[in-house]
Amino acid sequence: MPFRLSEIAQALGARLEGRGDIEIVRAAEPADADAGALAMAMAPEYAEGLSRGGARAALLWEGADWRALGLEAALYVPRPRFAMAGITRLLDPGPGIAPGIHPSVVIDPEAEIAADVAIGPLAVIGRGARIGTGARIGPLCHIAEAVELGEGALLHAGVRIGARVRIGARVIAQPGAVIGADGFSFVTPEVSAVESVRATLGDRGETQGQSWVRIHSLGAVRLGDDVEIGANTTIDRGTIRDTEIGSGTKIDNLVQVGHNARIGRDCLICGQAGVAGSAQIGDRVVLGGRTAVSDHITLGDDVVTGGGTGVLSDVPAGRVMFGTPATRMETQIEIYKAQRRLPRLMAQFAELQRTVRELVARGEASRDR
Amino acid sequence: MPFRLSEIAQALGARLEGRGDIEIVRAAEPADADAGALAMAMAPEYAEGLSRGGARAALLWEGADWRALGLEAALYVPRPRFAMAGITRLLDPGPGIAPGIHPSVVIDPEAEIAADVAIGPLAVIGRGARIGTGARIGPLCHIAEAVELGEGALLHAGVRIGARVRIGARVIAQPGAVIGADGFSFVTPEVSAVESVRATLGDRGETQGQSWVRIHSLGAVRLGDDVEIGANTTIDRGTIRDTEIGSGTKIDNLVQVGHNARIGRDCLICGQAGVAGSAQIGDRVVLGGRTAVSDHITLGDDVVTGGGTGVLSDVPAGRVMFGTPATRMETQIEIYKAQRRLPRLMAQFAELQRTVRELVARGEASRDR
Amino acid sequence: MPFRLSEIAQALGARLEGRGDIEIVRAAEPADADAGALAMAMAPEYAEGLSRGGARAALLWEGADWRALGLEAALYVPRPRFAMAGITRLLDPGPGIAPGIHPSVVIDPEAEIAADVAIGPLAVIGRGARIGTGARIGPLCHIAEAVELGEGALLHAGVRIGARVRIGARVIAQPGAVIGADGFSFVTPEVSAVESVRATLGDRGETQGQSWVRIHSLGAVRLGDDVEIGANTTIDRGTIRDTEIGSGTKIDNLVQVGHNARIGRDCLICGQAGVAGSAQIGDRVVLGGRTAVSDHITLGDDVVTGGGTGVLSDVPAGRVMFGTPATRMETQIEIYKAQRRLPRLMAQFAELQRTVRELVARGEASRDR
Repeated sequence: MPFRLSEIAQALGARLEGRGDIEIVRAAEPADADAGALAMAMAPEYAEGLSRGGARAALLWEGADWRALGLEAALYVPRPRFAMAGITRLLDPGPGIAPGIHPSVVIDPEAEIAADVAIGPLAVIGRGARIGTGARIGPLCHIAEAVELGEGALLHAGVRIGARVRIGARVIAQPGAVIGADGFSFVTPEVSAVESVRATLGDRGETQGQSWVRIHSLGAVRLGDDVEIGANTTIDRGTIRDTEIGSGTKIDNLVQVGHNARIGRDCLICGQAGVAGSAQIGDRVVLGGRTAVSDHITLGDDVVTGGGTGVLSDVPAGRVMFGTPATRMETQIEIYKAQRRLPRLMAQFAELQRTVRELVARGEASRDR
Repeated sequence: MPFRLSEIAQALGARLEGRGDIEIVRAAEPADADAGALAMAMAPEYAEGLSRGGARAALLWEGADWRALGLEAALYVPRPRFAMAGITRLLDPGPGIAPGIHPSVVIDPEAEIAADVAIGPLAVIGRGARIGTGARIGPLCHIAEAVELGEGALLHAGVRIGARVRIGARVIAQPGAVIGADGFSFVTPEVSAVESVRATLGDRGETQGQSWVRIHSLGAVRLGDDVEIGANTTIDRGTIRDTEIGSGTKIDNLVQVGHNARIGRDCLICGQAGVAGSAQIGDRVVLGGRTAVSDHITLGDDVVTGGGTGVLSDVPAGRVMFGTPATRMETQIEIYKAQRRLPRLMAQFAELQRTVRELVARGEASRDR
Repeated sequence: MPFRLSEIAQALGARLEGRGDIEIVRAAEPADADAGALAMAMAPEYAEGLSRGGARAALLWEGADWRALGLEAALYVPRPRFAMAGITRLLDPGPGIAPGIHPSVVIDPEAEIAADVAIGPLAVIGRGARIGTGARIGPLCHIAEAVELGEGALLHAGVRIGARVRIGARVIAQPGAVIGADGFSFVTPEVSAVESVRATLGDRGETQGQSWVRIHSLGAVRLGDDVEIGANTTIDRGTIRDTEIGSGTKIDNLVQVGHNARIGRDCLICGQAGVAGSAQIGDRVVLGGRTAVSDHITLGDDVVTGGGTGVLSDVPAGRVMFGTPATRMETQIEIYKAQRRLPRLMAQFAELQRTVRELVARGEASRDR
């Protein structure tokens, strides 16, 4: 479905200069753009690429002269990165889930499917599941019994939703996401080595070998509206209450969210991060890639962590944290710099010790004289 | 299926006080409990929640006065955390896999399915697979050829079991688990840069660019009894012999177990941990979340690691380890404290150097005089 | 399918001594080998195992006396590790995907399936997908619309290929791999706290709470020939252009490759590694297990990283890196050693401070006299 450039301008609230009737069917990097593409040239370093590509129209940086760049038209926006959201939404051909319910889908007779739902081949919908209006469910997905899936939700291929999980409107889950696995919760008849180590910070005590007994997860998972869950990400059920993820929170691929965790609204949780059981995370928190949050830890609102941060203790609202164990980012950067100088420091320290020893010896000698 | 409180008391070996005939259908946090719930109030800090909720009965901390808390009955146990295992097992409604074999399941004619097996929709059972009595296999699972699945095993939706894998009794695998992927093992015709770096701890030598040739995995995976495997966790086949995981070992979500690894009995391997190829791990070992164990490393029995530990060399039995590279936990805590003081140390060291230089200069001046 | 030992010798280019007519059906560890097995005894430490096992033939280390080891024949090769590739390829019984297309497969009428393709039960092939000659597609795989899958490719069970992804010849994907999930790319209407933190290395500025708006992924993923993708690994689509992985590159399990990343040829990316969005990685790069590469970072050709390395800035070609933040491996090993001595250094430093203070005081006292 092609768009006229003027339609795109209007959708974005962009300023259009030149011909608005150019038809756009795709976005492209400047050097790869052809006559049907809108070139994404949002900074001066893309000028050279534009000259190599064949675009007639581009999204340009403020101040760029579209005529001099050989274009027939251009769009200008105050915040180009934000304009990307609108342009890519317009031009996205989508995941290819055909309308309607494929005849191969296995739907329990007691499931309730609202109007306008699309379900791809070989999906399975369990007993008592309720699928909201306009939801799209990809091929080979499994929706277990008594799941609620909100209006307009989109599950890509092979998503697994466990029993009794409740999912809000417009939630998107990428392929292979598992929402509602059992929590990892085991207990031994007597106090275990782990409990002893945690209580003493290192002493395993006189604990005996024992087998682990499973604590079942009676809770489920509740996702608010507009949540996104990445590919092969796993979110565990709560033990007694639900594991909860607030509206607007986006979670990347291969992230682990443990049982009983509570994550607030509008958070961003980047790839391979881990939120251990019973952690509590405020609103608008950003966890950089591979961040780990220990169990039972609380992070206040608006906390930001750098990539690979290991959060081992509570963090007050608004802090920017980095490193393992997590410290304020500016402190951590100082620590990293100091670490790099550490081998040299060790050598200098040994030398200084020698010098001081000589001074002491000389002082004693002079007193002896 | 409701239980009378007296039945729960008996199943747990708990002391019952008050009315044993109250019907319990669920467990709940104290503040969320209604008349059909057993409130989980195992410490004094839950008293306030109890007063807000509507529970008639609770699991209480020793010494609590159930009448004063407005309850009609209470259970008391010596180790409440262990009682959770029994209570949650009783009240778990389960994953909703219906009895019998769904007609959409694809079973190879040469597979052997024992009695009382439940298989959900659209599962695939390969040639020569043998499924033990009472096993439950979730929707969209794949059991490849010649797999053995033990009695009472439970595979949640979308589990993948590779060819010739042998799985013990009562094993549980969460959605998306992959047991029996090929090992990651490649070799170059001539010595590669990696081999050279490992031999010299850093020197890549005169190695040339080469392509990687695959070493196929002829071994499979063998899991003992009562093993649990987390959601989207991956366990690779061995090269010549099987990768092995001992009975009673529990593995959390998104864990990687490499080819030829041997993990002992009754271990606990927490979320996102990684056990590289040919590592050997003893019995009752606990790997905290995100722990990494390098290839060909041996961990003795009863080793415990803190979250995020990077084990780069062998660890004797019984050690509690932490940090990267892993050291004894108490040492690592000292190292972390010292790291935090490192920037200040750097400044103080520079100052001390200046002071000593002055002392030396003054000493030389006084000698010159 | 048994092989005569002489056939194996010829396939490997190995030197055969003794009887070439022994029939071999499997490879085995020396102690586990029976009469039909080729014992893998490539170093002298395996001699003892050979004496316990029942092998008639073995792959031996150069210089070993096969008669003295009680064997009837032996193979000798200059590089035994490389010979493993050939032996295991010969003896691999494979994943058990039957020839032909299983009747339960759902194929869109507009898909193009070449000759000699094998597709396991309950796979789904989307509209306009093109499957190359001799490709094998495991059970429960999903190939979305307009995907191109190269000749001889092998997808194990439950692989998910997103729309418009292009995959080269002989590519292998392990179970649960997701190739072509949406990129994790979100933007706020105004500058966000994250953007501010990144610009200032720690200052979140006066940013306001805002909701995240999705930047759709219009690009796809392109894999070259002979690429391997591990179990439950996830590779995201590009935003405007494709995410690209060069021919011959092998990726292990649970690896995350972010949107727009470009990975070169013949790389080795080990388990749980993460390559963040828009990172550029050269040819023949080896990323050790759990290595993290930050977004927009460039790694030159032939870079090698140790396990757990955190690459936060560009790395020139040929460097061997280790630690977080990544430094040259030999430097990092020095840093790790120094860290271990850090608590003692702190104590010694405090003592040295005291000594110097005394020297200063004594010096002042002597001047006052």
